[in-house]
Amino acid sequence: MNTFGEIFRLTTFGESHGAAVGGVIDGMPAGVRIDLDAVQKELDRRRPGQSDIVTARAENDRVQILSGLMDGVTTGTPIGFMVANSQQRSADYDTLRDLFRPSHADYTYTEKYGLRDHRGGGRSSARETISRVVGGAFARQALALSGVAITAYTSQVGNIKLPGSYDDYDLAAAELNAVRCPDAAVAEQMEELIRDVKRDGDTVGGVVSCVISGCPVGLGDPVFGKLHARLAAAMMGINAAHGFDYGMGFDGVGRRGSEMADLFTTDASGRVRTLTNNSGGVQGGISNGEDIYFRVAFKPVATLLREIETIDKEHRPTTVKARGRHDPCVLPRAVPIVEAMAAMTVFDAMLLNRTCRI
Amino acid sequence: MNTFGEIFRLTTFGESHGAAVGGVIDGMPAGVRIDLDAVQKELDRRRPGQSDIVTARAENDRVQILSGLMDGVTTGTPIGFMVANSQQRSADYDTLRDLFRPSHADYTYTEKYGLRDHRGGGRSSARETISRVVGGAFARQALALSGVAITAYTSQVGNIKLPGSYDDYDLAAAELNAVRCPDAAVAEQMEELIRDVKRDGDTVGGVVSCVISGCPVGLGDPVFGKLHARLAAAMMGINAAHGFDYGMGFDGVGRRGSEMADLFTTDASGRVRTLTNNSGGVQGGISNGEDIYFRVAFKPVATLLREIETIDKEHRPTTVKARGRHDPCVLPRAVPIVEAMAAMTVFDAMLLNRTCRI
Amino acid sequence: MNTFGEIFRLTTFGESHGAAVGGVIDGMPAGVRIDLDAVQKELDRRRPGQSDIVTARAENDRVQILSGLMDGVTTGTPIGFMVANSQQRSADYDTLRDLFRPSHADYTYTEKYGLRDHRGGGRSSARETISRVVGGAFARQALALSGVAITAYTSQVGNIKLPGSYDDYDLAAAELNAVRCPDAAVAEQMEELIRDVKRDGDTVGGVVSCVISGCPVGLGDPVFGKLHARLAAAMMGINAAHGFDYGMGFDGVGRRGSEMADLFTTDASGRVRTLTNNSGGVQGGISNGEDIYFRVAFKPVATLLREIETIDKEHRPTTVKARGRHDPCVLPRAVPIVEAMAAMTVFDAMLLNRTCRI
Amino acid sequence: MNTFGEIFRLTTFGESHGAAVGGVIDGMPAGVRIDLDAVQKELDRRRPGQSDIVTARAENDRVQILSGLMDGVTTGTPIGFMVANSQQRSADYDTLRDLFRPSHADYTYTEKYGLRDHRGGGRSSARETISRVVGGAFARQALALSGVAITAYTSQVGNIKLPGSYDDYDLAAAELNAVRCPDAAVAEQMEELIRDVKRDGDTVGGVVSCVISGCPVGLGDPVFGKLHARLAAAMMGINAAHGFDYGMGFDGVGRRGSEMADLFTTDASGRVRTLTNNSGGVQGGISNGEDIYFRVAFKPVATLLREIETIDKEHRPTTVKARGRHDPCVLPRAVPIVEAMAAMTVFDAMLLNRTCRI
Repeated sequence: MNTFGEIFRLTTFGESHGAAVGGVIDGMPAGVRIDLDAVQKELDRRRPGQSDIVTARAENDRVQILSGLMDGVTTGTPIGFMVANSQQRSADYDTLRDLFRPSHADYTYTEKYGLRDHRGGGRSSARETISRVVGGAFARQALALSGVAITAYTSQVGNIKLPGSYDDYDLAAAELNAVRCPDAAVAEQMEELIRDVKRDGDTVGGVVSCVISGCPVGLGDPVFGKLHARLAAAMMGINAAHGFDYGMGFDGVGRRGSEMADLFTTDASGRVRTLTNNSGGVQGGISNGEDIYFRVAFKPVATLLREIETIDKEHRPTTVKARGRHDPCVLPRAVPIVEAMAAMTVFDAMLLNRTCRI
Repeated sequence: MNTFGEIFRLTTFGESHGAAVGGVIDGMPAGVRIDLDAVQKELDRRRPGQSDIVTARAENDRVQILSGLMDGVTTGTPIGFMVANSQQRSADYDTLRDLFRPSHADYTYTEKYGLRDHRGGGRSSARETISRVVGGAFARQALALSGVAITAYTSQVGNIKLPGSYDDYDLAAAELNAVRCPDAAVAEQMEELIRDVKRDGDTVGGVVSCVISGCPVGLGDPVFGKLHARLAAAMMGINAAHGFDYGMGFDGVGRRGSEMADLFTTDASGRVRTLTNNSGGVQGGISNGEDIYFRVAFKPVATLLREIETIDKEHRPTTVKARGRHDPCVLPRAVPIVEAMAAMTVFDAMLLNRTCRI
Repeated sequence: MNTFGEIFRLTTFGESHGAAVGGVIDGMPAGVRIDLDAVQKELDRRRPGQSDIVTARAENDRVQILSGLMDGVTTGTPIGFMVANSQQRSADYDTLRDLFRPSHADYTYTEKYGLRDHRGGGRSSARETISRVVGGAFARQALALSGVAITAYTSQVGNIKLPGSYDDYDLAAAELNAVRCPDAAVAEQMEELIRDVKRDGDTVGGVVSCVISGCPVGLGDPVFGKLHARLAAAMMGINAAHGFDYGMGFDGVGRRGSEMADLFTTDASGRVRTLTNNSGGVQGGISNGEDIYFRVAFKPVATLLREIETIDKEHRPTTVKARGRHDPCVLPRAVPIVEAMAAMTVFDAMLLNRTCRI
Repeated sequence: MNTFGEIFRLTTFGESHGAAVGGVIDGMPAGVRIDLDAVQKELDRRRPGQSDIVTARAENDRVQILSGLMDGVTTGTPIGFMVANSQQRSADYDTLRDLFRPSHADYTYTEKYGLRDHRGGGRSSARETISRVVGGAFARQALALSGVAITAYTSQVGNIKLPGSYDDYDLAAAELNAVRCPDAAVAEQMEELIRDVKRDGDTVGGVVSCVISGCPVGLGDPVFGKLHARLAAAMMGINAAHGFDYGMGFDGVGRRGSEMADLFTTDASGRVRTLTNNSGGVQGGISNGEDIYFRVAFKPVATLLREIETIDKEHRPTTVKARGRHDPCVLPRAVPIVEAMAAMTVFDAMLLNRTCRI
């Protein structure tokens, strides 16, 4: 089950220590001129080694498109792509061959499959998300033709929260700092916290928020395939994601229905709008044309640069201390992944939506 | 897209004002003896009119099994089922034909499909969940053969929260009160709040928590099909659900990785366990044998028994006031639906898991 | 796996001896006015007891639509439907409980599922095709809005073949006789043969041919989802079907490429056409706007009204003789089923085709 | 729709003139030791330039496995693979940019997608089948662990037919001659015919037959997913395939049911067998343990090395003559592709079958 989507479908492959990671984008409509530099730029946003608050691994990930384009335009055939795994220090992981790290996938993979690829986390490696970013970049370029834009940002690191709502900020400013928070002062506090945590050999969690603007009315299905259910599945499939809400979400449960109703109005052009947007742009599972906004909670990741107790494959007590280079906080690099998954979800819903009327 | 699941698949049909609601359960393995009284009992738990804090509609929903059983045992063929829509007062809804209620699906359905069934909310009606409860009841009986049990309960109504963790309570006690909260005193407060809200013609939201115990190690897939991603999609497909988290969820983002690591141990029988369960029973997307626990946030529903402003189909201002019988709080009736969706998700993952090793 | 299709999807349920057979049509676009009498008329075409050359069972199959229509128009929500199993003489089948009939599904079902519904063949009963005919009738009405028409007919019974090509005949004439062959004289020979075979307590096979006219250019996918591959799967899923070919099919393998090339031309309106149609209306897996034509071979069915040797559940030798009323030749009743499967296949491809360009 | 299968799923990408062809095998169970030389050997069987009766293109296709193996054993994660397109003479195809070849995919692709990759046939190129052969080789190695073997051979070229049934021959002998026919004398006639046809710049069709032995009882589903319906879809998705039948197929329609019944017996070990195998190893859509055998009809391909009339993109008359190196008969190279598709189909059904009983 390494395929995401129904019409626009991404199938991914690859571990951190095989020859390459990559995937196939199927269902990409013909006729979209692709800016490959923009695809690469998305990859660069998720790349390790961008700043002192993320892992120092100097991966130099160049995407190679293997099929599906002619003269820079999609032909309607599948887009095969890969990113070579240039830097493989499998020996770094030899000590992990025979033990299970706490709160990692080591134990569950072994029990599920009868064996596991211990090198670099195997399929649970963050490198797998490279393929998602490539898929998302194609979806995003198709969406842009319809005026849909997707912007995510870090809204919480540890207990440092960005106050207010997304429309209080210029979200483009998130790209101006390493932690990807649109408020420079809050960003500085977040980065400080991450540095502290890193010094301790520890990790910290946080929240990524995301806004989809320009989304047409009508995307999503009434029952199981509600647009927010599709988004939830997409987000909860990202490593370390532990929570999702949209609109007022968990914060809205304490309120009354009368406070939450989004009253209708029409704008100057006669288009139906709502005066408030507590619904988060989705009503009855279907987009209503307002901004879609949601949050994704990320736990502090489990790879600690300090010694902790664990067990080996024979279930005997031992200890483990991660070596190498790891992220003290996944949030900054999760931002482009959240955007990528959102882009694929919305574009898939847009294609599906072409079939709902005769 | 009215099908849920990959191997164990429920396809549902029906609006509140057609002849019936129902569905087809496909992929139900052969050889399970079904207790039809237990199926009906699940339906009774979601039925309106159970108490003074839910809608007074006296629906008398009897499920009729149309196929797939012989001498009470599943044959491996699809289970067709239906529940007749006995009580259809379409005239109640005539005033809704030409207007859009705020924060309902009226506007988005109309824009998506070019028309909508205005009677009783059409497909967005809560009656659609009848089919989910039936599907869940079959999955639950199959799961019970493997020792898997699923229990949901109301953990928050408005701002009244049940303190502590799920294992501080005897969850079976939730069925002893109308609001389905395992603590009698908190339940009373919740019910009081719901009665207050109802008196105001208003509504209130809340949180349903759910625990899956006895789940074998190995369910779920590493990437897009993580067990919690499947659960998130399942839960966010329930009407009024606005948030999902599992394990420490949103509350865990402020903590450090070193606090969150679930250290391994082995129990008396030599089975691998974890000392804590911050991971919520899922690691790397795959169940680890500990209890799986998660929360679902429900917004206050939008059907108010007071007059509010809205627009009609021609986008002209008007007002609307719901008539008939409606839930001031969906939480009590959402509990069996959360359980049903969880049961189908876990059983489907269990069947899929049979194919992951040679 | 009781679902057919990708966007337009039919899920069926029901055995001959449960309460009902039926299904759910999902993905039916909103806005199609449905002629329910025409749906019923399709059912009547597959009904037993229409003539002396088919089974005398007087099934009075009335379809009941349970959801998805408002004022006779599809709403975009699933169409639930059922046909009650009015005539259940389970006792007729008691002798079959403990034995396996040769060339039936009795043995394979039992081995697959560990048990089987012996009453009336269970799920392998011809009654299951009722649901397909209903699904096909909806697809056909949607297709008619685009000018697509589907006509099947009996082109061979035993060794009696209808000579020439489909365009040598007025295919509408097929409905004028019981065997559904468009040539009255050949039809008479076929019927005579069927009566002979019936007198012997035996059965005979044949071929159904089908023509899809008015199909737009562009349906089908280049690789696995070629339009003729979809049609082949659809047809080979009909009981007793043992072969499928399209265009020149098996008869074309002896010819040269130079004889088979369909040269292009343009018609008066400037539309691209081919001078011949050896390709059967599909090139590279995609419809080219010419008539699509194909054949389906049906074996003589295995239910004989004479005693034959077989084994029981303990694998001991015994004999069996079918009782009750059975078809000596399935061809006449297969005609509407072939049309139904073709209609669903083409309509599904048409909806999918909406997503292939930006 | 470039994915084949439900549990064991192959997704392919690539055109003849991009950087590579390849794919992702998803759902490959963990724990299978893969013989990569055997995979390569399958590729060599489909390679052009093996003899004077197939195209002289000297493709040197080496498969590169990018993921999913550790120490030569499958890990349960997706197998990414690619074969570089080393020999790209796009200029050979420049004359094809602006015209449609008769009976090719040129016109239909252009109409479907609004553009097409004219270089080497784009996605309709025979190179696409490389990915199928790789997928099939993995499935075949997994099947071998259960004793399932799959052998295809050329049984007809033009009007030269191999007489008798598959069990009259030592099928392994098919690999001893270029045309892959198990009878040396008939093979010689077939090869002579192909050389004649080639001299004329023409092409010829034929039939590939295939036998699956050792298949366990129980594979396939009763209704739409009958094992032979799955096989039919698989085979009809191969380029140039125009027909499929199994068991007695088209040749059986003229016979009586009493001749066709496969009477049961038990063998020395008590296993249920049938005295004859007219059913072709499948009854009621489910394998019965006997040999599964089927035929695939291939039309003479449309690429002629002689000038023929056609039209250009503006629909004006012109002529075309294929240049380069082409197969006068696809049959010899289709044999390993038929085997590959059969292997994937049967292995997928075997995995699915694990879920049908509790």
